[in-house]
Amino acid sequence: MFVELDLQSETPIYTQLADQLLAGIASGALRPGDPLPSVRSLAADLGINLHTVNKAYQVLKQEGFLQVHRKRGVVINPDGMPGVTAAFQDRLRHQLRGMAAEAAVRGMSQEELAELCRSVYDEIRQSGEGGNRDE
Amino acid sequence: MFVELDLQSETPIYTQLADQLLAGIASGALRPGDPLPSVRSLAADLGINLHTVNKAYQVLKQEGFLQVHRKRGVVINPDGMPGVTAAFQDRLRHQLRGMAAEAAVRGMSQEELAELCRSVYDEIRQSGEGGNRDE
Repeated sequence: MFVELDLQSETPIYTQLADQLLAGIASGALRPGDPLPSVRSLAADLGINLHTVNKAYQVLKQEGFLQVHRKRGVVINPDGMPGVTAAFQDRLRHQLRGMAAEAAVRGMSQEELAELCRSVYDEIRQSGEGGNRDE
Repeated sequence: MFVELDLQSETPIYTQLADQLLAGIASGALRPGDPLPSVRSLAADLGINLHTVNKAYQVLKQEGFLQVHRKRGVVINPDGMPGVTAAFQDRLRHQLRGMAAEAAVRGMSQEELAELCRSVYDEIRQSGEGGNRDE
């Protein structure tokens, strides 16, 4: 796995893990139908608690990114990814608010913030290319 | 105060409070040199723990947004706001990564994400205008 966790971060581990699995899907490294490791084996690989991996999988399952089968195990939803829902847009706006406030106070312009968003989006899209999973 | 907290949110209360104080500065509702309520009085107003308010103030003080004087109390830094540091840009990129990944997976385009950032930035800038502190 190409997952890298920051145990010192304020972001909960299960959120970091879920975000990195999403980044894997966004970059094309993980595709619909691809199997993911079992909770037990991923927890052992990453040296984290079973419940933490389970929570990340549950969150992604609830939103429709994963399917969990008793026999086939955990797979990236083979029926495709959920779209841009109103609930997602609300959540995104909400999360952006704190960042945008600090950016504005520090004197970052609206266009600079938008450009940073574009650049992060690009990075995520491209991180799966060439099979370079180290960065 | 125009602070509104969501006690059900996954975002820690002190972070919500710090973000809303920053939004107050970004909108011009709070200006350099303006006094803030004491920890005790703000905690009582909001019905939250003293330590939570203290943590929000400490975080903002550490970054240079506030000053805490023994006599004058807590004030928005009268010497002006900190700028766009490399550390801030790193933190911002890091926080944007999870959102950008989910946006990309859901099929939101790079430009749609950038436009959402612009719109949230606008909202924050304008929320202080006309003295409307209810929204």
